[in-house]
Amino acid sequence: MATLINKQVVLRDYVTGFANESDLVITSTNVDLRVQKGSMTALVKNLYLSCDPYMRNRMRKPDPLSPASAQSFTPGKPISGLGVSKVIDSGHPDYREGDLLWGAVGWEEYSVITPIPNLHFKIQHTNFPLSYYTGLLGMPGMTAYVGFYEICSPKKGETVFVSAASGAVGQLVGQFAKMMGCYVVGSAGSKEKVDLLKNKFGFDDAFNYKEEHNLIVALKRCFPQGIDIYFENVGGKMLDAVILNMRPHGRIAACGMISQYNLQNPEGVYGLSLITYKRIRIEGFNCFDYFHKYSEFLEFVVPLLSEGKITYVEDVADGLESAPAALVGLFHGKNVGKQLVAVSRDLE
Amino acid sequence: MATLINKQVVLRDYVTGFANESDLVITSTNVDLRVQKGSMTALVKNLYLSCDPYMRNRMRKPDPLSPASAQSFTPGKPISGLGVSKVIDSGHPDYREGDLLWGAVGWEEYSVITPIPNLHFKIQHTNFPLSYYTGLLGMPGMTAYVGFYEICSPKKGETVFVSAASGAVGQLVGQFAKMMGCYVVGSAGSKEKVDLLKNKFGFDDAFNYKEEHNLIVALKRCFPQGIDIYFENVGGKMLDAVILNMRPHGRIAACGMISQYNLQNPEGVYGLSLITYKRIRIEGFNCFDYFHKYSEFLEFVVPLLSEGKITYVEDVADGLESAPAALVGLFHGKNVGKQLVAVSRDLE
Repeated sequence: MATLINKQVVLRDYVTGFANESDLVITSTNVDLRVQKGSMTALVKNLYLSCDPYMRNRMRKPDPLSPASAQSFTPGKPISGLGVSKVIDSGHPDYREGDLLWGAVGWEEYSVITPIPNLHFKIQHTNFPLSYYTGLLGMPGMTAYVGFYEICSPKKGETVFVSAASGAVGQLVGQFAKMMGCYVVGSAGSKEKVDLLKNKFGFDDAFNYKEEHNLIVALKRCFPQGIDIYFENVGGKMLDAVILNMRPHGRIAACGMISQYNLQNPEGVYGLSLITYKRIRIEGFNCFDYFHKYSEFLEFVVPLLSEGKITYVEDVADGLESAPAALVGLFHGKNVGKQLVAVSRDLE
Repeated sequence: MATLINKQVVLRDYVTGFANESDLVITSTNVDLRVQKGSMTALVKNLYLSCDPYMRNRMRKPDPLSPASAQSFTPGKPISGLGVSKVIDSGHPDYREGDLLWGAVGWEEYSVITPIPNLHFKIQHTNFPLSYYTGLLGMPGMTAYVGFYEICSPKKGETVFVSAASGAVGQLVGQFAKMMGCYVVGSAGSKEKVDLLKNKFGFDDAFNYKEEHNLIVALKRCFPQGIDIYFENVGGKMLDAVILNMRPHGRIAACGMISQYNLQNPEGVYGLSLITYKRIRIEGFNCFDYFHKYSEFLEFVVPLLSEGKITYVEDVADGLESAPAALVGLFHGKNVGKQLVAVSRDLE
């Protein structure tokens, strides 16, 4: 049977502290070009891989005291994530050679997948960059959509703060909030990103958190009347500063806490007792609980994108060899916009 | 005009760290026995005063960065809280001499109040101990009612953990949760309290948190399958241990965090990033937002009390002179059940 060389990104060992490029190794194996009929599997060629913050938690040794935390990768095996792929051969009646998919794949050139509803999606709209299915039209888009509209309970005229605001999710939350008539401020980690927030994504204001001596004061300056909604992407000190600046009945959508994922000892949050006085709701969510709304989301976002009412910035690393640096760079904020890896731009 | 001597409990100065009895001073002043007709005020004789954890926060110096936190008492003036009183004279058309009220009063023998709806309530049911209007039939009762039924979204068969479980609110939450068919565990700070939880209030299990080396392990022992609902009264280390033991889609009603109120530097909560993975909702609430439901609450709880289906334990300190020790004792867990002060048992 014909085989191909299949380069893979393998986790060397469980990671403690900050992840390094050397924690991920490029190896290669062989992959059969054909899958058995009736096997319910498909061989896909991976075009784009998505770099997502939650992946850091999957590099951690499983914690028996906390089995509900992220599922760990297996050392010595390729890591996995979300990607955009093309079907090369299929043993599944619903998938055919040439179909374009997005969903769960290995970090490798070719993956054998067992397609699962709500984990693998056929791509219908191909008039946008296919890479958008790692971002705006994929998981980060759904995350921004359900996180903002379902979890934040937003109302016109409310004040909204978004951290990691130029990232895959944040840039969309800011644009959704502006469309709703909210006052929106974002934080990010460089001047370039702050400029993007103000000039490209239409945030009302933005600040570089690395240049603020006191986050409490920075937020007070941006929100003299306080914050109604916080879209939480970072955790730690920022969360504490936000709680102090929240208005009564404020809502915090806990999308993620990237500042904590690489710390061996996470930072404490000290001001939680204020949530009783302020009647604050903090709610963790995962967009995969909402994928029955994926087609509703596409009906909402595709026209906005077609009409230029929404924009999306990506940061593309080329080639599977660049994948370890791209993923690790995410935790240092090196990316500007949605970080992804273009494994192959060749659709044939 | 006839006057009476009016003993008062006065805050000496703002308090940092643990409150002491000496932070509260008994003084006396004179009070007129009559109020002007049409003044919309009433002179009341205070019968019972309620000792509540939130009062510690009102002893703190106001924080300009956090104006939404508790409203501070004024040093040199009597502190205030909730109490049960009898109208001696009234300049308000809706209140008459002899009326029994519960609501906001000064910590003193007599108060001149301006009755405000949802802050002062006429007592209709007098076939129960009047002191119950500082607890079961008053603010703590409403807190347990809205906190459990509205904030916790409980379902039959779910697992419920209550901290400070023998306190004014906790003992009721446990009984409500049992009535709903939940599995209920409580924590408290002495053997006597743990016995009360198991034998008087019908908790399925209980533990003395002071005798546990590791709260995470203690909760794992009590909830091998995890916790669906946490009724949060204490904060700090217990909250962290609970988050680690929460099941996916768990809910935390943040009623209060008494373990933090006397600390100059509050403890950190380190495991918050888990709330995203577990989709946990943490919600602060204040029963005063729900007092439009007070009559609904009485309709619910009065029959239960009459039929002996619910029970309530009080810890009564006698005389206004005992008030400072009673209030400060609350923060050391000296009380067994709802702590209150009987200023006068004389209804005449």
